[in-house]
Amino acid sequence: MTTAEEDLLCYAYDATNRHYRPDAVAFPANTHEISDILKLANEHRFFVVPRGAGTGMSGGALAVKGGLVLVMTRFSRILTIDTENLVAEVEPGVVTGHFQEAVEEKGLFYPPDPSSAPFSTLGGNVAECAGGPRAVKYGVTRDYVLGLEVVLPTGEIIRTGVHTAKGVVGYDLTRLIVGSEGTLGVITKIVLRLFPLPEVVRTLSVVFDRIHDAARTVSEIIRSGVVPRTVEYMDHAAIRCVEDYQGTGLPADAGAMLLIEVDGSQSAVETDIRDLTEICMNRGAQVRVAGSEQEAKDLWRVRQAISPALFKLGPDKINEDIVVPRNRIPDMVEWIDDLSSRTGLTIVTFGHAGDGNIHFNIMLDRRDKEILEKAESAVEALFRQTIALGGTISGEHGIGITKAPYIGMEIGTEELALMKRIKALFDPNGILNPGKIF
Amino acid sequence: MTTAEEDLLCYAYDATNRHYRPDAVAFPANTHEISDILKLANEHRFFVVPRGAGTGMSGGALAVKGGLVLVMTRFSRILTIDTENLVAEVEPGVVTGHFQEAVEEKGLFYPPDPSSAPFSTLGGNVAECAGGPRAVKYGVTRDYVLGLEVVLPTGEIIRTGVHTAKGVVGYDLTRLIVGSEGTLGVITKIVLRLFPLPEVVRTLSVVFDRIHDAARTVSEIIRSGVVPRTVEYMDHAAIRCVEDYQGTGLPADAGAMLLIEVDGSQSAVETDIRDLTEICMNRGAQVRVAGSEQEAKDLWRVRQAISPALFKLGPDKINEDIVVPRNRIPDMVEWIDDLSSRTGLTIVTFGHAGDGNIHFNIMLDRRDKEILEKAESAVEALFRQTIALGGTISGEHGIGITKAPYIGMEIGTEELALMKRIKALFDPNGILNPGKIF
Repeated sequence: MTTAEEDLLCYAYDATNRHYRPDAVAFPANTHEISDILKLANEHRFFVVPRGAGTGMSGGALAVKGGLVLVMTRFSRILTIDTENLVAEVEPGVVTGHFQEAVEEKGLFYPPDPSSAPFSTLGGNVAECAGGPRAVKYGVTRDYVLGLEVVLPTGEIIRTGVHTAKGVVGYDLTRLIVGSEGTLGVITKIVLRLFPLPEVVRTLSVVFDRIHDAARTVSEIIRSGVVPRTVEYMDHAAIRCVEDYQGTGLPADAGAMLLIEVDGSQSAVETDIRDLTEICMNRGAQVRVAGSEQEAKDLWRVRQAISPALFKLGPDKINEDIVVPRNRIPDMVEWIDDLSSRTGLTIVTFGHAGDGNIHFNIMLDRRDKEILEKAESAVEALFRQTIALGGTISGEHGIGITKAPYIGMEIGTEELALMKRIKALFDPNGILNPGKIF
Repeated sequence: MTTAEEDLLCYAYDATNRHYRPDAVAFPANTHEISDILKLANEHRFFVVPRGAGTGMSGGALAVKGGLVLVMTRFSRILTIDTENLVAEVEPGVVTGHFQEAVEEKGLFYPPDPSSAPFSTLGGNVAECAGGPRAVKYGVTRDYVLGLEVVLPTGEIIRTGVHTAKGVVGYDLTRLIVGSEGTLGVITKIVLRLFPLPEVVRTLSVVFDRIHDAARTVSEIIRSGVVPRTVEYMDHAAIRCVEDYQGTGLPADAGAMLLIEVDGSQSAVETDIRDLTEICMNRGAQVRVAGSEQEAKDLWRVRQAISPALFKLGPDKINEDIVVPRNRIPDMVEWIDDLSSRTGLTIVTFGHAGDGNIHFNIMLDRRDKEILEKAESAVEALFRQTIALGGTISGEHGIGITKAPYIGMEIGTEELALMKRIKALFDPNGILNPGKIF
């Protein structure tokens, strides 16, 4: 444990760029130490905040009420990768990208792929139920968690779920913990389901004159029966922004871009590419199929550059991860266009069009109070519109502190009351990760 | 509502062949009636037991302590099938098979396929988290439930989850209700995820001289990277039994059979069939690929005849649905062989080899107390062996009353205590589906 000022400051931040200085930071070495810490916390009533790599977008790892930050980085072992049963057992501090590489070396595949994968940890991914671009075909983190070891807020160590493909014994504690944002327990072990590594992955870049054509094409792809593993989109503002930042190689008048990945056997992938190309060209798009792995990487570079490039448009970012039903993407895009021209705010959208998950970014200077206020009203309007279209205010980031003021827009009073009762049942003294979600 | 004796007797049974006469039977027409009934039940302290089609294998729909059976058959509407967003909204009384047909007519696919699909209802499937043969590729019911409307035991009506592919707002109440066996609430609406209907489905029948070769082949298939949508197996006893019942068309000395289904695009399926045939023939199997839909149906007839055919071996059946890690199937099969010869019991196994889910059946005459006792010890030994091999005592049937005595073999004391506290939180007066799971 440490209370050295530089450590406290180091663990005061996460990807939300807010900061809350904890009172102390601990680096537990094993499950029993965590159990002991939590028992102490109940006895002496101090707050405990579990933390993975601190890459969360909603403040889940921040000690908003002070207390002890529990840094899980020492839980960094991949315990087993079982190639016969397609199951792995890992500790929560394993970096997601390292795990992906480790299973790929054995010919296996862990599909969840949050953009933070090179830095974020599996424990954080499970706690937040991380998503990513591949959800359109492969689902999200939740769909890969078979079982957990968890230290309850009161210190008991429990094991949930199974090591097998099926299992229905007792209540589904596993999936109650997944996505509970570190408020119901500290995850100390994770059993994950794997797939065989697809034989082939191919990438298509599809450029449209107008965003609406891109959005409609996504609906047409889904209806066609082809299931790509990713359908990412970037609007005109995102393309311009990356163009200025590092160049895109795209036509100057590109209004929108889809980045599509298909995977499977060689023959299946070829059929998919043929079908996708036809659908996209019928909408007047320019389609480019990456011929090599390097070319695919180059296409992805454009997508990956968005986040850093955005800061050319303003020093601060308000970043929301709403989801609408896929066929409402055109409506949402139109609405956002309108919002942007109505308010004069700098708004850039991109995201996982295949599953309706839109990343909505307002770039601004937070010191400009007038703009900030306008941006905050815009976010609230965005959430209202999202819910009106049958969507949800968070597809993958979670609620944490950033969306806590808005949870009542989506979740009803009875449902919230039930969730709070569950929280109180797990954590009667409210010592674990306080101030989050509710 | 009725208290007529013939109705009470009619709703006293389920597929476990146990019977418990309820005190009354109600056929609610809408969610508010259910809410009113549950409020009354809390006020006057009577038990309420929700019931779908009564096809459950663990007694979930039985009024084991009397009370009111809530028959959900009037909740029989498919509310929407959204072909653009691949989402459907249904009432819980919809028969699973009818729903499968309705979505297929629109070119969509609802993969969960419990053997009871022609009779069982979606509400029951969700309450028990039904599995079926396609889990090897497509997962189980849980993986398709996006959201629910539920009447809590205390009468509040809640809505959980989302209508979109992603969503992480608040605790995952949806999946806490899925598989809770009608003990945490009465499901009144279900939002389900759909897939595009695969272009082609093909069936292979693979006959082995020895069960061990079949079991090893399953491991080899999984390792190969091919993901069939079903890998069913039948042992020698099951084949003999169907042979006597209706003929199988299989060689007389067939020691075991795999029934494999692959689906996808025409080209992908052709590649899979080629790879599977090679793997199976390398193990000395005789492979037959169904050339037509009729031929595929004929192959499946053998599998589907097992359950009725079994009763030629004895008037009563003890039926367990254990799961072991896929690569332990050979060990489990060997252990069961040994159990059978050691005890002299008539044991037949078949099941979903692709996901390690083995249906273990002892055929007997329950009136023979000596045999019954022997069978009960055998079941307990089976569960111990299952857990020793890293498995679970129920892959798809649930705990209900039939496995309640054994739940402590798999679930630890702390975990059970937590589950019971969750039950008490949802149902403080214990009025909903008492006597189940714990």
